[in-house]
Amino acid sequence: MEEIRKLIRDIPDFPKEGIIFKDITPLLLDPKAYQTTIDVIADRYMDKHIDVVIGVEARGFVMASTIAYKLNAGFIMVRKPGKLPYKTHKATYQLEYGADSLEIHQDAIKPGQRVLIVDDVLATGGTASAVTGLVELMGGDLVECAFLIELDFLNGKEKLKDCPIFSLIHY
Amino acid sequence: MEEIRKLIRDIPDFPKEGIIFKDITPLLLDPKAYQTTIDVIADRYMDKHIDVVIGVEARGFVMASTIAYKLNAGFIMVRKPGKLPYKTHKATYQLEYGADSLEIHQDAIKPGQRVLIVDDVLATGGTASAVTGLVELMGGDLVECAFLIELDFLNGKEKLKDCPIFSLIHY
Repeated sequence: MEEIRKLIRDIPDFPKEGIIFKDITPLLLDPKAYQTTIDVIADRYMDKHIDVVIGVEARGFVMASTIAYKLNAGFIMVRKPGKLPYKTHKATYQLEYGADSLEIHQDAIKPGQRVLIVDDVLATGGTASAVTGLVELMGGDLVECAFLIELDFLNGKEKLKDCPIFSLIHY
Repeated sequence: MEEIRKLIRDIPDFPKEGIIFKDITPLLLDPKAYQTTIDVIADRYMDKHIDVVIGVEARGFVMASTIAYKLNAGFIMVRKPGKLPYKTHKATYQLEYGADSLEIHQDAIKPGQRVLIVDDVLATGGTASAVTGLVELMGGDLVECAFLIELDFLNGKEKLKDCPIFSLIHY
């Protein structure tokens, strides 16, 4: 894991002053580190009979779609409002200032399907919690939320109490 | 290819009246069709020594990142302005009304690296042409632009004259 951690770059004051952004682009650019990252996460679910993997717009699509491929699962995009062309369910969640929404296609999850959520970063947990709500609404069986990075000091786990969490790297 | 084509859904009047949108979400949701799509495109480049694969925000991340994984290549995100945290190069391109921009990290491509661009749809070619311009600016060796879908009647090929194109499905 140390090789992977070394390829995550700190960007101070992004997207705004006082925030240290964890930039995973050097990791994605390194074929070996990218492969290891995908393999370690996918291997964890290889025997878990995952039917569908959810990725959250936009960075979340990267790892989630690749892990879906490796697990012989379907891939589902959860997107910002107005981006999905078919009938959708919508979840609204609180941000530091104001609120935001995410949508999923109504035909994306069948009741009882085993669902894995994959995202790059667990921060405050607002996004992930909105997505778990959509999975529940649609009758999906949520197996786990997997993250490349968890920012422990933001305590996102608290918002995801009902869902098992796996994070590859902690800060 | 007929099985794949059957899983691409027409959505009339999206994102605006008169447009028939090609919705690939049923394809991504079908594990076998999704795997076949990735495999057919990736196999084409297996012996082509691709160093990096570029995906364009946001839907373009899905297939491009998975194909990068299969090709043992690095993955590069080309994103909308302000989304990439590190130093960027920017390309501006014309839309039907107005203009739009895309950014790439300045450390994403090293001169002489062999680059593959993967996107889901080739429409008018504006986006792809902006990305090929960024690859050229950075001294990358552009091997090909690969698309899942090409809308032949929009003649995007014309804008990409200097770049070989491969499209899995034509409309």
